[in-house]
Amino acid sequence: MHVLIIGAAGMIGHRLAARLGAQPVLGGESVTRMTLVDMVAPNAPDAAMPCETVAGSIEDAEIRRRILAGRPEVIFQLAAVVSGAAEADFDLGWRVNVAAVQALCEDIRRIGYSPRLITTSSVAVFGGDLPDPVPDTHHLSPQSSYGAQKAVGELILADFTRKGFIDGRTVRLPTIVVRPGAPNAAASSFVSGIIREPLKGERAKLPVARDSRVWIASPDLAVASLIHAATLAPKALGAAAVVTARGLTVSVQQIIDALAFAAGPEVAALIDDEPDPAVAAIVGSWPQGFDSGLAVALGFPTDDSIEQIIARHIAEHHPHLAQAE
Amino acid sequence: MHVLIIGAAGMIGHRLAARLGAQPVLGGESVTRMTLVDMVAPNAPDAAMPCETVAGSIEDAEIRRRILAGRPEVIFQLAAVVSGAAEADFDLGWRVNVAAVQALCEDIRRIGYSPRLITTSSVAVFGGDLPDPVPDTHHLSPQSSYGAQKAVGELILADFTRKGFIDGRTVRLPTIVVRPGAPNAAASSFVSGIIREPLKGERAKLPVARDSRVWIASPDLAVASLIHAATLAPKALGAAAVVTARGLTVSVQQIIDALAFAAGPEVAALIDDEPDPAVAAIVGSWPQGFDSGLAVALGFPTDDSIEQIIARHIAEHHPHLAQAE
Repeated sequence: MHVLIIGAAGMIGHRLAARLGAQPVLGGESVTRMTLVDMVAPNAPDAAMPCETVAGSIEDAEIRRRILAGRPEVIFQLAAVVSGAAEADFDLGWRVNVAAVQALCEDIRRIGYSPRLITTSSVAVFGGDLPDPVPDTHHLSPQSSYGAQKAVGELILADFTRKGFIDGRTVRLPTIVVRPGAPNAAASSFVSGIIREPLKGERAKLPVARDSRVWIASPDLAVASLIHAATLAPKALGAAAVVTARGLTVSVQQIIDALAFAAGPEVAALIDDEPDPAVAAIVGSWPQGFDSGLAVALGFPTDDSIEQIIARHIAEHHPHLAQAE
Repeated sequence: MHVLIIGAAGMIGHRLAARLGAQPVLGGESVTRMTLVDMVAPNAPDAAMPCETVAGSIEDAEIRRRILAGRPEVIFQLAAVVSGAAEADFDLGWRVNVAAVQALCEDIRRIGYSPRLITTSSVAVFGGDLPDPVPDTHHLSPQSSYGAQKAVGELILADFTRKGFIDGRTVRLPTIVVRPGAPNAAASSFVSGIIREPLKGERAKLPVARDSRVWIASPDLAVASLIHAATLAPKALGAAAVVTARGLTVSVQQIIDALAFAAGPEVAALIDDEPDPAVAAIVGSWPQGFDSGLAVALGFPTDDSIEQIIARHIAEHHPHLAQAE
């Protein structure tokens, strides 16, 4: 089985490639070849199989031709212009998040084979007055260009899937915690920051109240959810071809308590409450929990707890801390 | 005020142009000029104001340039590839119902003015297991390419509107009854046919059970709903920039009874029950009623009754029958 990962240099794509390199199996079938593409050439993972790496954008028809040339049976489409960038650059967001993905689907249709195409969406497709928890069938009500683009992407993939041109599966992912790297301008940045920075001995700002609730999943859970989606029977997701992954709803205080439990109160004390009304307003507009009935029924995995998420982050990034306990 | 009607040769566009020609007022402002465009040149209505007519498609950048050249303050975008055609020709539907409309919005954005743009959507954005009545906030769940395209169009217009590039208002219209002209291949064709053909002394086929319910509006109500949408304050429709118009839910038997009441039992006897399971299945999948809370709150008009709809159709198309009573 030939697997194509678009966006393979990103946090999730990189991790997914590593997972398939280390365990080259997808739903009982062997992964025998990978093609990895991103704007910058992705690193090939440790893997016995041939891994082609390609630098380029799926906006480019020649890149699309090249990555589809081997007729990959499974395509993970993870390339996206993220929330803040899509809001700042209207053209870029619609071009990459919608037009390029639609062009990819069109190219596949014209080739005339119907691969599995697994892609991600976001809780940003929901907004406004939200019930708690948000049901699988809540109406698409995006309040940002990113959310609108992801909602449109869901509908386009569903129609290509209904017509049999593609076997599409969209997975709406929670806020990923703990993101590696530096803090960024995303309103959600603090959720990873209040874990990641203190563990490095650095101070972290908390812009929201400690009783704020967020809906999260670990990077491993995101990868496991995408792999699970890839192994479902065709049409398992129904006409909408979309499923909301299983996240955890936790309060900021629960995150801080779990950090203190794992690394000590002196680490948790590195978090500074610095309320930022703008960030608090954005975070407050997000869904805080989902009734993931469809994901549960389809056997999607879930993280056990925020304690487990933090323990795994420590084991991966701070093995000396894990050993010290 | 300069009004542009795209799709001005169609049933609703034609009627809207006639209405604005006869009563050149929109929300208290005078309509002083109209531009009418369709694939075939529309007939200019009886009107004192200048009416430019244009033959062409909004897929054509030069046509878009031409119809936007006068910076129309109000644009009614009624051009669409209809349900059956969009399902039969996947490319055509996505090109006209989505890409061309998005290109129009892009052109407006690049010009840099923000006109009111009123367009239509359909109950085909809803499908699957539907509550009865369907609330304004039911999730987009199209089961056809036409429905998917209309849902995508709603989301695109909402995002252009949120960003202030356009002042968009989408109106989801019921099945229009009585459509003029000949029966067509649409599954909904019979709803008009069982009124229109018997009134002409011709037999009509009824492919569904008489207790089937349909959600309908008159052509005049469709026009009145679009005009009402054009006169709303900006942002009145909320973030989604869409409203479901006020239709009537009636059973087929109620339609037949109303026809017999208006034109006599011998006219209603021209309807032949000829069950067609395929048509019955499609009609059964449609929403049968809506909770039009938003439309009611915003003062949208409604038809009084199926009796009134039939009486108006008779007055317009069979004045001798109306006089004979």
